Amino acid sequence: MQLAMINDKIMAMEDVDSAYLDRGLFFGDGVYEVLRSYNGKIFALDDHFTRFANSLKAIEITSVDVADIRSKVLKAFDKAAIANAKIYFHITRGSGVRDHLPKADLKPNFFLTISELKDNPKLKNEGVAVSTYPDIRWKRCDIKSLNLLPNVLAKGDADKKGAWEAVFVNDDGLITEGSSSAFFGIVKGKLRTSPLKANILPSITRKYVELAANNIGLPTAEKSLTPKEAQVADELFLAVTTKDIIPVVKFDGQPIADAKPGKWTKLLIEEFKKFIA
Amino acid sequence: MQLAMINDKIMAMEDVDSAYLDRGLFFGDGVYEVLRSYNGKIFALDDHFTRFANSLKAIEITSVDVADIRSKVLKAFDKAAIANAKIYFHITRGSGVRDHLPKADLKPNFFLTISELKDNPKLKNEGVAVSTYPDIRWKRCDIKSLNLLPNVLAKGDADKKGAWEAVFVNDDGLITEGSSSAFFGIVKGKLRTSPLKANILPSITRKYVELAANNIGLPTAEKSLTPKEAQVADELFLAVTTKDIIPVVKFDGQPIADAKPGKWTKLLIEEFKKFIA
Repeated sequence: MQLAMINDKIMAMEDVDSAYLDRGLFFGDGVYEVLRSYNGKIFALDDHFTRFANSLKAIEITSVDVADIRSKVLKAFDKAAIANAKIYFHITRGSGVRDHLPKADLKPNFFLTISELKDNPKLKNEGVAVSTYPDIRWKRCDIKSLNLLPNVLAKGDADKKGAWEAVFVNDDGLITEGSSSAFFGIVKGKLRTSPLKANILPSITRKYVELAANNIGLPTAEKSLTPKEAQVADELFLAVTTKDIIPVVKFDGQPIADAKPGKWTKLLIEEFKKFIA
Repeated sequence: MQLAMINDKIMAMEDVDSAYLDRGLFFGDGVYEVLRSYNGKIFALDDHFTRFANSLKAIEITSVDVADIRSKVLKAFDKAAIANAKIYFHITRGSGVRDHLPKADLKPNFFLTISELKDNPKLKNEGVAVSTYPDIRWKRCDIKSLNLLPNVLAKGDADKKGAWEAVFVNDDGLITEGSSSAFFGIVKGKLRTSPLKANILPSITRKYVELAANNIGLPTAEKSLTPKEAQVADELFLAVTTKDIIPVVKFDGQPIADAKPGKWTKLLIEEFKKFIA
């Protein structure tokens, strides 16, 4: 008899729901996306699906029809009828007996949630604090995978320090990105952010921030900041799908400039709105 | 209305089973153990629970009573009545709305499976092939966490190359460990394996292999091998809970010595049996 136990309940293996045998749970063997809508329209849908297809390919989940997933997402979004929605979805390699080596006939699992995004004007108007955390993540952070334990640990550490977000600092002493955001600084009249490599998620919002910067005549340099540079930057901000641009006014306890959202940051927030209209 | 979709089915969020909202699934936010029994007795039970407690502590899951988990495991093992069993269990931080920052009141989820371990004498008698894979894992491999995607990718790569296991090679050109095993070499009359650091799982079987080596007068040096050293080693083998010692007879396509299990490896296999009796 093969046997399972879920919390306090012992049962035969054949009575275990496949949700408990998901490779997403056993191994984090899956990839995900987070989208948002503004006023009934999903932002940067194509960008997100391009990245999603890249993530699937990178971990060799080959049996998924991305067009089908896109239809599913649109169908659910339509059904939810939430104007300003947060859409989360993931695909895992499938459910089955736990074995690192996946069986060839696995059927990928799809899971999605749609919830209302509540506006939090305080974050944008007053800015947030960030704290640093060692970048202990794996070497393929360009894949948007379900292996997010270091991000969870970093966020928890930030919270303990009274910060809203953690930014990772790698072994070279460079800031890579936030635990669930891209990180930007404005230094000597230039927008600075990390170049896209295997250790950085190709943030969609980052792309639109760079477009916005271009539109308002703010030159961009893809060069990572050190924590020391960040503390004396003119301005700092985060970019994240669900909140677009969030000013950073404190870095590891140190106020940034006058500890208020900077002028370029505010201009970028305004310019970003044009992409949404 | 908050909405979810599981495969093709759209439903209200409140109808979603908590298994789909497990932080183990969203983030790999959990830790696990694999134990085995020999003839009705669980091997190295204390060692596994000591490591499990360390893993829980490292990711700050603090509300779990390890003694209670131990009772659960023993209860299930008793009920299963399988003499040679593989016992897998994990604890995740709990289920809830997806948010990197865990809510304070989360209730950890426990999941266990017990299945029969079938003997595979061919592996021990003939040995296996291994292939190398870059060690792209995170920097806390000493924590036995559910973030195992790189291990899955490595195992898949090995399989494609006709190898039974992948061994990770880090940026310094050193072999760390297998995707789900510890790695050993015998070089110039010495047993060699990686020292236990943050990049290595403290393998329980490794500990008993070192004890066995001591018992048979084989000196041990905790010094990682390079792939080049491995290819010309006298002997190689893997250590893993479910199979104790498995000889390695091929490394990246290169036969090891006469491509047969080595004499020390066979002596260690025999000596290991004394721990089980």
